[in-house]
Amino acid sequence: MQETRYDVVGIGNAIVDIIGRCDDGFLSKHDLAKGFMRLIEAEEADRLYGLMGPSIERSGGSAANTVAGLASFGGRAAFIGRVADDQFGKVFWHDIRAAGVSFETPPATSGLPTAVCLILVTPDGERTMNTFLGASTELSAAEVDAGLIAASKVTYLEGYLFDKPAAKEAFYAASAIAAKSGRKTALTLSDAFCVDRHRTDFRKLVKNGVDVLFANEKEITALYEVNSFDEAVTAVRGECEIAVLTRSEAGSIIVTDKETVQVRPQRVERVVDATGAGDLYAAGFLYGYTRNLKLSDCGRLASLAASEIISHIGARPERPLSAIAKQEGLVAG
Amino acid sequence: MQETRYDVVGIGNAIVDIIGRCDDGFLSKHDLAKGFMRLIEAEEADRLYGLMGPSIERSGGSAANTVAGLASFGGRAAFIGRVADDQFGKVFWHDIRAAGVSFETPPATSGLPTAVCLILVTPDGERTMNTFLGASTELSAAEVDAGLIAASKVTYLEGYLFDKPAAKEAFYAASAIAAKSGRKTALTLSDAFCVDRHRTDFRKLVKNGVDVLFANEKEITALYEVNSFDEAVTAVRGECEIAVLTRSEAGSIIVTDKETVQVRPQRVERVVDATGAGDLYAAGFLYGYTRNLKLSDCGRLASLAASEIISHIGARPERPLSAIAKQEGLVAG
Repeated sequence: MQETRYDVVGIGNAIVDIIGRCDDGFLSKHDLAKGFMRLIEAEEADRLYGLMGPSIERSGGSAANTVAGLASFGGRAAFIGRVADDQFGKVFWHDIRAAGVSFETPPATSGLPTAVCLILVTPDGERTMNTFLGASTELSAAEVDAGLIAASKVTYLEGYLFDKPAAKEAFYAASAIAAKSGRKTALTLSDAFCVDRHRTDFRKLVKNGVDVLFANEKEITALYEVNSFDEAVTAVRGECEIAVLTRSEAGSIIVTDKETVQVRPQRVERVVDATGAGDLYAAGFLYGYTRNLKLSDCGRLASLAASEIISHIGARPERPLSAIAKQEGLVAG
Repeated sequence: MQETRYDVVGIGNAIVDIIGRCDDGFLSKHDLAKGFMRLIEAEEADRLYGLMGPSIERSGGSAANTVAGLASFGGRAAFIGRVADDQFGKVFWHDIRAAGVSFETPPATSGLPTAVCLILVTPDGERTMNTFLGASTELSAAEVDAGLIAASKVTYLEGYLFDKPAAKEAFYAASAIAAKSGRKTALTLSDAFCVDRHRTDFRKLVKNGVDVLFANEKEITALYEVNSFDEAVTAVRGECEIAVLTRSEAGSIIVTDKETVQVRPQRVERVVDATGAGDLYAAGFLYGYTRNLKLSDCGRLASLAASEIISHIGARPERPLSAIAKQEGLVAG
């Protein structure tokens, strides 16, 4: 097998986050389901933005956050995703490359603007997301660089890609190349509503095309239509090589055919903004996984990365995760 | 005299800040004078942005920050400035209106893009600014709404406007209308290099067209070409109604013809990002001034606002300044 050039290549929506604070009353008033993601069109994005308070902009996108996190640990990361040739596209392009991630997907020179996600953060730190996919809807199998997939230990895919037909094709194309090249495929289920929209496809995929699965409690119970976390653990065990299941402040568990590893959460003083917690959890886990660390250490790296991201606004690390990992004795100094 | 509709109308460059961290070595390597502002063209902005690390975007602009701060105290604020009809223009437009500031200047539909300021924040919290004025250079006397100036207690102008001929004309037009309408004019000297570029004009203006002057130690000593703060105080006394002179962690003093009021700085745990400290100082002062508070209380409001802004990234308040002022007993609860 050829040498790998990257530890992880992420494929996902290329999004700039527009982050503002609101109270719970704002969410109720505008019928926004707290803690979830919904897709919106341009008009609704304009309307909601007009209602939002003063905001900040910061690069986001689920898989993009994960590979930026992986690079922050010192991992070799690449990204495939579609921005437009506009100011937000330039912001996304700059930030992911400045984070040390290889990113070569050409920007769209016509069509919709770069994707934005209007993120409302409530006083408890929970985030509620409203995504206008814009240029990201044009991501297709044509953007999937086969050489890049074949040269990466893990191809990491976000479930959100299933929300648009062309991106879904890109998803399948990438996972087929990874399998053919003897590489691993990892998937995050992204969002419980997203799971609900694509349950049948996701179940098949987990059984037949995925090596490492990431999901939170709501997503994994939605996938198997069960009422408890324990039932979901039973349902997923053995479906793929590793299932990494997160439960926010209750920590997480790593489930393989024969093993169940409990991971304690990393304590944080205050959850400022939960955006990116799952994305960075995946980053930490994959950093350990691609270095063949034992599962419990992969889990600890995951918790560390998640705890850094929820302690500030935005879903990209503000401190080098490599330094934090060294400090905790999880990697050599 | 007609009733006022606004306490303060600010006129200034309409800018989106792109804020990233760097170490002191980066500043030396690229010949950037720490703590100052320099003007750059589009090519240099692209070059420097390419060298910067991951960043966040947040609305800025000196006078714009000041009126946003005034609104956060509960003051009635308006703004005049020029953005382009692009994504950053939309960001600026959204944020200033969401902050409660009236903003009606039509965006430019052709020409240069919205102004950006590349802000490099060093570990000590100091900021070094690189401004591409873009659409803001097209601000001219045509944008100055005479009715708005006449209806505002104070017209607040940033010295940066002198860097472009059309904006300088806008500046003079506004201050002439304010004087004719029996209103006050306030000026911030903006930056020591800016003072150096326009010393003669600024001195005349302070003597003949300004009621309230804001300057930091470097700016006021540059204005009068003196070596010490005390000499500058002597030089400025009586030149205008009130001179408000700031000295960072040494606090500030308020100088009138007959009085000198010392203002202690508000203690902050850690300076995260000094961007906007002077702008918010002016906001607090003007909030008290337009309510006829005594000068020492104007100074305390100023210090409070400055301390809020330097405790986080970006130059717009994150907590309502009205609540902080109430907590400190400076305004009625």
